[in-house]
Amino acid sequence: MRYVMVVEYDGTDYSGWQRQDNAPSVQQTIEDKLSIFLQKKTVIVASGRTDKGVHAYGQVAHFDTDSTVPPSNMRYAVNTMLPQDIRIVDMYEVAPDFHAQYSAKRKTYVYKTYVSRVLSPMRARYYAQVIPEVDVERMKEAAKCLVGEHDFRAFCSTGSSIQNKVRELYRVDIDVRGDEIIFEIEGNGFLYNMVRIIVGTLVFIGRGMLPVDTTQRMLDTGIRKLGGKTYPACGLALKSVKY
Amino acid sequence: MRYVMVVEYDGTDYSGWQRQDNAPSVQQTIEDKLSIFLQKKTVIVASGRTDKGVHAYGQVAHFDTDSTVPPSNMRYAVNTMLPQDIRIVDMYEVAPDFHAQYSAKRKTYVYKTYVSRVLSPMRARYYAQVIPEVDVERMKEAAKCLVGEHDFRAFCSTGSSIQNKVRELYRVDIDVRGDEIIFEIEGNGFLYNMVRIIVGTLVFIGRGMLPVDTTQRMLDTGIRKLGGKTYPACGLALKSVKY
Repeated sequence: MRYVMVVEYDGTDYSGWQRQDNAPSVQQTIEDKLSIFLQKKTVIVASGRTDKGVHAYGQVAHFDTDSTVPPSNMRYAVNTMLPQDIRIVDMYEVAPDFHAQYSAKRKTYVYKTYVSRVLSPMRARYYAQVIPEVDVERMKEAAKCLVGEHDFRAFCSTGSSIQNKVRELYRVDIDVRGDEIIFEIEGNGFLYNMVRIIVGTLVFIGRGMLPVDTTQRMLDTGIRKLGGKTYPACGLALKSVKY
Repeated sequence: MRYVMVVEYDGTDYSGWQRQDNAPSVQQTIEDKLSIFLQKKTVIVASGRTDKGVHAYGQVAHFDTDSTVPPSNMRYAVNTMLPQDIRIVDMYEVAPDFHAQYSAKRKTYVYKTYVSRVLSPMRARYYAQVIPEVDVERMKEAAKCLVGEHDFRAFCSTGSSIQNKVRELYRVDIDVRGDEIIFEIEGNGFLYNMVRIIVGTLVFIGRGMLPVDTTQRMLDTGIRKLGGKTYPACGLALKSVKY
């Protein structure tokens, strides 16, 4: 049978989702415990990797097993073996042709920031700091052109081997809550560092360090250097994956 | 001159506010850096201690100095020396008779919980988990009698040497936000573990493990054992001190 798991993790102490040789990854941590429970080496396949230090509320991964243990019991048992910063929040059987990566239709990322001249210790782990002043209306104006289907090569870090950089964004929401600015971006797929470059560019625009038409010019020219810096991993979390 | 500082800290990795011999405390960490900056051993006096693992958004402490450095510059300089989990968010001069502890009129604590059968890795550091089902109306009903001036000896852990256990609470707010229940308690003073015992007792009442009149019976009899467990330190934060 093919099972799917929804995973929440605090990515602070991991090298990212993907198994690596010399650093602890979320994938390896789950696979090791799941394999012990199933008494069989088991590989899990995620909707996509998340980078070092990036969090997830709803990462999705599938795996195959011939175990007869009900998924809710399996979830409970594996959770007792996992460290506190990783939990399987849901597990259920899916059709054999379901694939966590290839069947994914939409992903939503959330990026949290707070606007302050002083670092906030209570938010340092899950937020990025933004130095005031920030003009949110300018950011919203600059975000508009990102929605829709575009070649996002200007919003992709070098080192990506993917050729086709056309993606579709369904929304780029910018929500102000007190001194916090929360970005929520939903799309059919994301390039390497794409959300962090979008947020960094919008913040630079909001702070008046870049013109408001920067995002449009990046889409038009494909030039990464026109944008703002890649914002820190700690503010980013994979919120959900839709199938 | 007497200066006051407002301090935010993530208490996870500290033995508490108060300087101790064998464990890192928030007080010691700040005093050490401030003393280096002022080139003079300097003691800071807080509004009160916070326990091991308890956080603060607005702890207040005063100290005396003959430095001519403006407080905003001093704040900035000391912050650059502090670890990321402690920051002085404000610093200013006060009257020489101001005392961070004795001049304090009101304190507000916030206690954060989420209701879930599964531990939430993204909230494990700053929240306590509550297992469903929880009847919030029952908790609100039980919280009512706590407001006002009472002898709170039943809401105080043993080991406290304080004789007078009469305190006044101005409000016990219970706020539901999605799957989270946030407690905010304001009073003229708090006994050892008082907020954590109040929350633990209200949660037990909300889950139907204790009768709704438990809080009133605790006030009437002064018996700690009637209540729920002392809830974990991680969910608690000193929000603000009023003078």
